[in-house]
Amino acid sequence: MSLNIYDIAKLAGVSIATVSRVVNDSPKVSQKTKDKVLAVMAANDYTPNVFARGMSLNSMKTAGIICPDVSDHYMAKAVAYLEKNLRSYGYDCILYCSGYEQESKETAVQLILQKRIDALILVGSNYAGDARYGEDVSYIKKASEEVPVFLMNGCIEGKNIYSVITNDYQAVYDSVSELIQAGRKKILFISDSYSYSAMNKQRGYENALKAHGLPVLGERKIYMKNDIHMVRDLLLARRDLDFDAVVASEDGIAVGVLKYAKARMLSVPEDLSIIGYNNSELSIGCEPELTSVDGRGEILCKVTIDSMMEVLGGKKIDPLMRIDCRLVKRCTTDF
Amino acid sequence: MSLNIYDIAKLAGVSIATVSRVVNDSPKVSQKTKDKVLAVMAANDYTPNVFARGMSLNSMKTAGIICPDVSDHYMAKAVAYLEKNLRSYGYDCILYCSGYEQESKETAVQLILQKRIDALILVGSNYAGDARYGEDVSYIKKASEEVPVFLMNGCIEGKNIYSVITNDYQAVYDSVSELIQAGRKKILFISDSYSYSAMNKQRGYENALKAHGLPVLGERKIYMKNDIHMVRDLLLARRDLDFDAVVASEDGIAVGVLKYAKARMLSVPEDLSIIGYNNSELSIGCEPELTSVDGRGEILCKVTIDSMMEVLGGKKIDPLMRIDCRLVKRCTTDF
Repeated sequence: MSLNIYDIAKLAGVSIATVSRVVNDSPKVSQKTKDKVLAVMAANDYTPNVFARGMSLNSMKTAGIICPDVSDHYMAKAVAYLEKNLRSYGYDCILYCSGYEQESKETAVQLILQKRIDALILVGSNYAGDARYGEDVSYIKKASEEVPVFLMNGCIEGKNIYSVITNDYQAVYDSVSELIQAGRKKILFISDSYSYSAMNKQRGYENALKAHGLPVLGERKIYMKNDIHMVRDLLLARRDLDFDAVVASEDGIAVGVLKYAKARMLSVPEDLSIIGYNNSELSIGCEPELTSVDGRGEILCKVTIDSMMEVLGGKKIDPLMRIDCRLVKRCTTDF
Repeated sequence: MSLNIYDIAKLAGVSIATVSRVVNDSPKVSQKTKDKVLAVMAANDYTPNVFARGMSLNSMKTAGIICPDVSDHYMAKAVAYLEKNLRSYGYDCILYCSGYEQESKETAVQLILQKRIDALILVGSNYAGDARYGEDVSYIKKASEEVPVFLMNGCIEGKNIYSVITNDYQAVYDSVSELIQAGRKKILFISDSYSYSAMNKQRGYENALKAHGLPVLGERKIYMKNDIHMVRDLLLARRDLDFDAVVASEDGIAVGVLKYAKARMLSVPEDLSIIGYNNSELSIGCEPELTSVDGRGEILCKVTIDSMMEVLGGKKIDPLMRIDCRLVKRCTTDF
């Protein structure tokens, strides 16, 4: 029995989409991969059939989207926008929720590459590695040998990898600077992550303090779960902490700080100023309503899809695109 | 040039998956469809190739998921659970966001059927028709001729259609009864939808009032957008309305009522009791924290996927499954 495209893909250790690209002499496949696949074909006397030939000509017009957890508000909004934008170009999307663990993220990427996707979009900054451990991103570089990879709010350098990032550094730098100019001197930074984006937020916080001659104290940088009640309870328990403002990496954390202020009968923003992140529905559901950084996710998604279309259309584009945030001022700050 | 499976599908006006099922003599295709496809094949001298034959034997293990808008919290959580449960069975999912309009919903179903999916899951009660217009659900019945269709929180009767619904009727009936027993007599019902689920909520509200000898007044049933500030402003503008409790179809609406209470300096729950719906993060982000109906979406999703596996495994199951809700009591009610 003669081998088919699935067999060749298996033997060569690549996806059927890659075999198809080799058959159709697509420029998107690296010479190394091409050589490997052609060698397997030759060794097995494989003659590509109409199906194999048709595949890349007749693209499936499908994008793979991977996010850690689509029940997270920010990611849900991103996936909704991406899907809508993709559809406007006639593209479908296959969704994988990978979780946050290194192994499960690698598995998700491997599985989705077995589908006939034209491009891969990774949502959120958790794919760009964990700053603490120097997490391995070679699985993403490997994926980029098969299809163009788009990182949304993460940054990895490499051929066929495109990063569209929110300028979180600047957003936090500016927020902290405004707090300082409004008289706050003891600013807490609370974050729930060590992702690429979270580290940019932290750097923005530290550099703004330094630029204004204020000390960067380890005790004022708190890393914990994004859970409203847990944040409230931790701050209530930490009576040693002295602070007059909080910059949070997520709105949920900021709402937890609000709950703490209520429990301690502190006036917001007079005694305690609070800035959240993501400008989610939570930021207007709480009382007083929350000043929050808007990462402009809709624009981030639009730029990602537009870039993807340019790359798939054979155009050369900038591998790093940056979107500026916007601070939405409400009632938890007095500037 | 001889025709391929795509051509046959096009000529017969069905998906390639359906042609494959006919080729493989699957029992899932209606006799009518089978006859039509076989006629097209005969007329065109079509001989199915290995690819066509392989398709249904070698299932793609893919489920199609359609929801109106994955950026909605409830749907996002549902899609996340579904994806996770599907993956645990080795299934992938293709996601479509259809919007809420009849035409766009029909288009989404048509498009996703062109993919090689094993089953179709429709998330949310917006696919079971709009109670006001007696919306057409024949496109769903048509889809069920090709693949089993699972409605999450909607109910349509038909062969190969399975409905897993939240017992919204009972949840609102019980909530309103508890409010009445706690002394409330003028209960407002605010809803943002005329969907299957929304109408069950409304019936629960009306029947609980009747059962306790209270009048059902048209002015106490309000239909409006789920928007925190719009709800607050509408209630502030409607000074003619007299009410001492509100049952809302969504947490966002209930939080809007809380904002109204604050603006009017009403005590919650003493002057005004409020019950939200979905037990979302919003319900603990607001102040006081919201009593809310938990639709137990996680269980709904699990039952849906388990049912899907039984149906795909050839088992016969109950076409209607009902999940009971749970009222999570917090600070906006005094019972």
